[in-house]
Amino acid sequence: MNTSSIKTAAMLAIGDELLSGRTKDKNIGYLADLMTVAGIDLKEVRIVADEEDAIVEALNALRSRYDYVFTSGGIGPTHDDITADAVAKAFGVACIHDPEAMELLAAMYARRGIEFTEARQRMARMPEGSRHIPNPVSTAPGFIIGNVHVMAGVPQVFQAMISHVVGLLPTGAQVITRSITCPFGEGDIGTMLAAIQKAHPETSIGSYPHFDGTRFSTELLVRSRDLQAVSLAAEAVEAMVAELAAEKERVVMRDQGTGELA
Amino acid sequence: MNTSSIKTAAMLAIGDELLSGRTKDKNIGYLADLMTVAGIDLKEVRIVADEEDAIVEALNALRSRYDYVFTSGGIGPTHDDITADAVAKAFGVACIHDPEAMELLAAMYARRGIEFTEARQRMARMPEGSRHIPNPVSTAPGFIIGNVHVMAGVPQVFQAMISHVVGLLPTGAQVITRSITCPFGEGDIGTMLAAIQKAHPETSIGSYPHFDGTRFSTELLVRSRDLQAVSLAAEAVEAMVAELAAEKERVVMRDQGTGELA
Repeated sequence: MNTSSIKTAAMLAIGDELLSGRTKDKNIGYLADLMTVAGIDLKEVRIVADEEDAIVEALNALRSRYDYVFTSGGIGPTHDDITADAVAKAFGVACIHDPEAMELLAAMYARRGIEFTEARQRMARMPEGSRHIPNPVSTAPGFIIGNVHVMAGVPQVFQAMISHVVGLLPTGAQVITRSITCPFGEGDIGTMLAAIQKAHPETSIGSYPHFDGTRFSTELLVRSRDLQAVSLAAEAVEAMVAELAAEKERVVMRDQGTGELA
Repeated sequence: MNTSSIKTAAMLAIGDELLSGRTKDKNIGYLADLMTVAGIDLKEVRIVADEEDAIVEALNALRSRYDYVFTSGGIGPTHDDITADAVAKAFGVACIHDPEAMELLAAMYARRGIEFTEARQRMARMPEGSRHIPNPVSTAPGFIIGNVHVMAGVPQVFQAMISHVVGLLPTGAQVITRSITCPFGEGDIGTMLAAIQKAHPETSIGSYPHFDGTRFSTELLVRSRDLQAVSLAAEAVEAMVAELAAEKERVVMRDQGTGELA
C-alpha cells in the first residue's frame, strides 16, 4: 500500500456561537463522514471565535501541516463576518471585492428587485487570486486559496459547498472499516484486544464504549486501507468475542449448579 | 467591569472516532453551554486523534494560553486509551497507577465479583500528583493536573465529571445575552447592524442566519457582562428591526397601489 499518496486534512470552524453553545455544530460531523468516504484522513479540527488573530494563527498552523484545510463560517454580509479578511491576512494578500462575485450577486439581486447594498457587497469579498466555490443555495460563493477551502457556516450551504469541493480533490484509497458489536465492557476485553492490535499492526483497532444507563457494551472497529489485513484482524476480534461469550456461559452454568455438573 | 478576573478556557476532544465521523461529538456543545452559564469564556476547541504527539502538542499549546483546559476521551482500559500517558508526557511527569484509584477500582470490582484485570487497572493510570475527578457513573476517576481537567468521552460520564469540575472553579460574571428575532436576512440589516455595533463597542452583537429552505431570517444576539450596555444595544437593534418592517410595509402598500395613494 502506497501511503505517501494518502492526503491529510484539517477543519477550522469559525464562530462565537459555536463556543457560546448557542449553535451546536453540524458541519464537523458532516465533513468527517465525507472525508472517510473520500479516503482523505481528517487529522485535526479546531473551533475558534470570530477574532482575526485567532483565525489567522489557526489557519497558518493548519495549512502548513495538512494537505487540505476546510473552513466553515464567517463569510456573510454582517460586521462579525471577518473570515475573508482573516484568510487574506494569513496569506499576506489583499482582500478585494472579487469582480466575478460582484457580478453574480448584482445579477441575482437585480432579478429579485433587491438593492445590492454595501453589506451585501461584503459577500463578494475574498483574498485576491481566489477561485470560487459555487453556492447553489444562496449565490454568495465560497472560495479556494492555496490549499484552503472557505465555506459558509449555514449547514445547507456548507454541505452544498463541501460536496462540490470534494469532487475537485484527488481522493485516496478508502479506509475499510469492519464493525464488531461486543456485548462486554472494555475492562473484559482490554488485555486481549491489545494483543490482537499488536499482532495486526497494519490495522487500527478502536474500542468505543457505550453506556445504556446500566451497563457498558463496546463497538469494536477494525480499520485499514488493506482489505486482507482488516479481514484477518476482524476474524481475530470476532474469535475473542465468541470465546469470552462461551466463557461467561460456562461461569453461569457453574454458578447455577446444574445437575450434570454438581 | 473588571475584565482581568474573567477566566478563559479551551477544550481538547480526543478520539479517532470523532475525526472519522463514526461518533458525532456531544461533549463540546455541552461544555460550551456550561461555560456560558459559569461566566467562563470558552475561546478554542480542538479535536485530535488518539496519537501521543498530537495530544501532547495540542495540550501544551492550550494549557499555556488559557486559564483552564478540559479534555474528553481516551481514559478507558483499552490500548487506544492513551490520554493519561500523553498528559503525563506533556507535563514531564511519570504516569503511574494511582494508589487511591487502584483501591477504588479494586473495591468496586470485588463487590461485583469481577476480576480486576491488567486492562481494568489501566483506568487507574494518571500523571503523578494528579487529583481525582469523581466518576459517579462507572467509578474510574478523571483527574486534574495543573490547569488541565481530564475527563471521559462517554457523554454520561463526561457530563457528570464536568458538572463536578465546574463546581470547583471560581466562576466569573455571567455574560448576559439578549436575543432579537429578525425576519430579514443579513443583507437587509448588515449596514445598519454594523453601525449599531460601532455605537455600542462594549457589547458583542452577533448575527446568525437561518435558512428554512426558501428564505433567510436572522437571530441577533447582543452579549456583554454589562446589563445596561446590553439593554441599550438591544433597544437599538429592536428599533432597527421595527423600522425595517415598517419600510417593507410601505413598499408593499405602494406596490399594491391602494386607492388613497394612487
